[in-house]
Order: sequence, then C-alpha cells, then structure tokens
Amino acid sequence: MSDFPKRVEIKEEGPREGFQIEKNPIPTARKIEFIDALSRTGLKTIQIVSFVNPKAVPNMADAEEVVAGITPVPGVTYTGLTLNDKGVERALATRRLTVKGSITLCASETFLKRNQNRTLAQHLAAQHDTIALYKRHGLPIEGAGISAAFGCNFEGDVPVSRVMALAADIFNLAAEHDLTIRRFALMDTMAWATPDRVKRVVGALQDRYPDLEYVLHLHDTRGMGIANAYAGLEMGVAHYDACVAGLGGCPFAGHKGAAGNVCTEDLAFMCAEMGIETGLDLEKLIACAQLAQDIVGHPLPGSVMVGGSLAKLRKQMAA
Amino acid sequence: MSDFPKRVEIKEEGPREGFQIEKNPIPTARKIEFIDALSRTGLKTIQIVSFVNPKAVPNMADAEEVVAGITPVPGVTYTGLTLNDKGVERALATRRLTVKGSITLCASETFLKRNQNRTLAQHLAAQHDTIALYKRHGLPIEGAGISAAFGCNFEGDVPVSRVMALAADIFNLAAEHDLTIRRFALMDTMAWATPDRVKRVVGALQDRYPDLEYVLHLHDTRGMGIANAYAGLEMGVAHYDACVAGLGGCPFAGHKGAAGNVCTEDLAFMCAEMGIETGLDLEKLIACAQLAQDIVGHPLPGSVMVGGSLAKLRKQMAA
Repeated sequence: MSDFPKRVEIKEEGPREGFQIEKNPIPTARKIEFIDALSRTGLKTIQIVSFVNPKAVPNMADAEEVVAGITPVPGVTYTGLTLNDKGVERALATRRLTVKGSITLCASETFLKRNQNRTLAQHLAAQHDTIALYKRHGLPIEGAGISAAFGCNFEGDVPVSRVMALAADIFNLAAEHDLTIRRFALMDTMAWATPDRVKRVVGALQDRYPDLEYVLHLHDTRGMGIANAYAGLEMGVAHYDACVAGLGGCPFAGHKGAAGNVCTEDLAFMCAEMGIETGLDLEKLIACAQLAQDIVGHPLPGSVMVGGSLAKLRKQMAA
Repeated sequence: MSDFPKRVEIKEEGPREGFQIEKNPIPTARKIEFIDALSRTGLKTIQIVSFVNPKAVPNMADAEEVVAGITPVPGVTYTGLTLNDKGVERALATRRLTVKGSITLCASETFLKRNQNRTLAQHLAAQHDTIALYKRHGLPIEGAGISAAFGCNFEGDVPVSRVMALAADIFNLAAEHDLTIRRFALMDTMAWATPDRVKRVVGALQDRYPDLEYVLHLHDTRGMGIANAYAGLEMGVAHYDACVAGLGGCPFAGHKGAAGNVCTEDLAFMCAEMGIETGLDLEKLIACAQLAQDIVGHPLPGSVMVGGSLAKLRKQMAA
C-alpha cells in the first residue's frame, strides 16, 4: 500500500539549529558535552555548528572552539552549516569537519534578503562562485536543496511550479559545471508544510527526477512536523534532518514560536514502531533530549522524552 | 490517491479531559467561561464534564454547577462523560446535556481494573444493565467504542485480532438488544498508536464493518497525535475527539507525560490547510487555547496557538 523505506537516516542538527536560536549564551563546554553525548546514540551525521556572522548569531561565535573540543567518534560525520565562501573556508580550516558542496536556492526572495541580504538573482549568480570555491578545494558537490520550499511567512504559499522551476535552475547550474546531483533537500524553513503538501511537492520532484535521494528538513512550529515526516515516509523519503528534543527554529523566520525542528527522538520512535530501521538508540536519544533541556534551561517541545518509549515499557512488562 | 473526507467533525473534550487531570482546583466560574468561549468557535459538540467519583477526580466534583452555569449556544450539543449508571443518572438530572447510550469495551483488562475496578468479563456483563438503563430512559444507543484500542502501558501491544474480537462482542450485544450501532470510536487511551497502526486497525474494521462512521480519540503523549489523525484522514475517518491547546491526559494511565489529547486547533489547522471543512473559526480556537493556558496556569502543548495560523499571515500579506 505504501512505499515506506526499509531504513531511514536521520541527520542530527540540534547543536546547530538548537543553540543558534537561544538568547542566553551557552557555555562552549556544555555544547561539547551535548555533541559528545549525541555521538554515542548511533547518529551517523551531526551538524554541530554554523559558520555565520557572530554579530547576527552570537551563540555560534565559538564555532571553532566547539569543533576543536569534541571527541570525534569513528564512523560519525561532523558537519557545519555554511552560507557563503567565508563559512566554507572557516569549516575547512577546522580540519575536523566533513565539508561537502551543495547548491541551495530559496523559494522566497524576501526571506533570502532577510537571511542573506541577497535577491534571488544575486543568489543564483553567486552559486557560480560557490561552486568554483568548492571545486578549488576539491570538495564533492552532489547535494542540492530548496529552502522555504513549502511557504514563507513573508510571501505566502509556494506553488509546486516554483519549486520545479528552482529545481530546473539547480540542474541547469549543475550541468553547466559538469556536476551530478544525487541528493535533494526540501526545507520547510517556516513551517508551512502539511502532509498533503509534502506529498504533492515530493511527488512532483520524484516524477521529474526519479533517481534522486530526497531529504526533508521539517520544522514543527505549527505542530505538523511528525505528520509531515510520516507523509515523507509514505513517499519513500529516507533522509530527514531533525533535532533532539525538538531544539531549533530559525532566528530570521520572524515568529516567536517555541517549537523548532522536527524532534529526532519522536521521529526515531515513529520509525522504530513502524519497523523502519534507523540504527539509533532511542533511550540514549531521550537522555540527550533531557541533557539539551538542562543546557538551554527551559522546557523543549519533544514528546517521547516526556511520554517515554514503548520499547522500554514492553521490556518492563516482559521482565 | 487518498480518500480524504470532505468534511471533518471535531468533538471538543477540553473542559472534561483537560480539567480532570489538573491537580490544582479550577474555579467553577473559569470552567464556565472556557466552555462559553468554546461555544462560539463553531464547535458542534462539547464534552464539558464527567460524572465520576469526586474522590477520584476532584476537579469534576462541581460537574452539576458547571452544567447549570453555562450559556448554551443554539446548535451546540453539550455532553458529559459517564462511566456507569450513576453517571448517566446525574447527567440526565441536569436536563441540559445530550445523553446518548453507547457500548464501550476496553482492550486491556489491567487498565479497566485500574480505571473502573472491573474485569473484562464483568465489564461485558455490565453492559446489559447499562443498555437496560439507557432504554429505560428512552435514550438512543447508536454509538460503540473500544478504549486502549492500540496498546496499553500495563499490557503492551493490542493486536488487531483483539480489537476485532471486541468489535464482534459489541455487535453481538447490540444484536441481542435489537440495537443498530452507527458510530464506532477507537480510543488511543495511552498513546500507543502510530500512523501505520491506525491504518491497520481502522482498515480491518472498515473491511468488516464498511457502513460505520468511525471516530478516533487520540492522545499526543508520544507526539504522534497529528500524524495519527492524518492517517485517519487518509482512511476517510471524518470524526475526531480533540482538546483545545492539547489539554488532557488520563489520570489513570500511569505516566506523567505532559502531552494530552490531540490538539483541536492544530487538527483544525491541518484540515483547513488540506481543504477539508470543519466549520471551525481557527482564530477563535487559538484564543480559547490561550484562555485554557491562563486557566490552568501552565504552558499547554498546542503548537498553532504559538506558531500562529497561516490564514492570518495570508490575510496580512494581502492587506
């Protein structure tokens, strides 16, 4: 009936998404403690910092110290978010992060202006330089993505046709630079997605580009995160970005909603209950979620960290 | 592709589910204020009290006063939860509530014992008396349901076969008493449901009993509430119980999880965004959710009440 993937890979973004939005400064040592705990949960990719202007995002001013301070676990890939050339160079200079190129466009000009101070045309044009930079450093460029892919708080609904046009721009750029894009991310930056919309957008892309690996980056600001991920699973999407405890949000998105990204352990719980492998230790993820709450000093929106896993209850009953 | 219903009816249970679980006493006047606000949101059915032992649920000791104090809005049906003969008699004595009979069984004996101090066999046998009571008062008996239908914190997973066996018990009882059951509720009392499980159980029942109107009563304790409702929508289920702000929970469920029932305004938001009619005013529901938070004096789990509706943003953009 459905094309559920057999295995789902969750990329953790809690340290980056979660800490960038906090107003109170978070001590570097606690960030490191959190990342090291995440490294022991079975997560294979953790985005631990962003290389952005520290004036705009003060809690990322210590990005280099955080990277230097963690205890890398073999088999775990650590990444950093980069939005421009300087960011890429900072990430490379750490010599500890995996840096991969990607072509990311944005479906909303207003959001792009607030977030990166560029028009859509300027952003598209800038991709040539970014690609050149990646190439100069010998970095693979196999990823692409569209932010604000489902809607924008400033511009409203994003029609599927705009997503398709941006995807065409991306594949034209890739062809021009002789690149093969294998992975394509749809980012619901401002939480406009609903499950049916996820299916429509993913479906349209899958019809046109059937061989790509799709990634969903979902926010839970309006409570749709897990339902949207479920819609993704029904479409066979096997890659999700998520944040432990539902950390996160976007400092430029123009709303004060407490809910952040889709919650890692809630998503891992749903997958486990559906018989979909994630390779994750749910109890360890729950412990990380509780640690995150302790670090930020306020309640976080994750549910399974409060309600508890069913696997644990089943074990207690069997004992 | 999917069989989404054109129209969804949400039955509000916030005043009952929400207030019964609060430890601090809630003044009768505030309960009435909340119910009166809910009455102006487009909701057609509101469960406002439960007639249970006040020693077990102190916040329902004023049930009669609450019922007497509200200002009924024409077209809105007000109900009360009743678990036994005494409850039915108390509900009828108010002369303001719509009282309908129903045959409700429970998929977990342990839960039933904790909740109503009865074995499954005792509970099944007691239904004859309950049916007789409803008949004596000339009350229609067209509803049925199964609580703990997806799993139990004390007994674990509930197989589909057990649900089907209980459904058969219900229809045997109905036949014996010459009743026609039209509406069938599946209650995820302890939040064991995941979307695929919802589809399996609903699908099995629909195959066997295709003409029933199905109702989902979902809890969000493990963050699956909206995803489970979405799965219900995909199966064509058009009736949902929900609580404004995600109020609720169950005092007997044996966990301290903050998350309660699936959130009315989040569900109404999803339906509206999917083009499914609910007849509800989302902004008024959000105001009720904020009122609920004020009344209970602590944050409640609803998301759209924090993240805001998209319809409002669209209006602001158009202005």
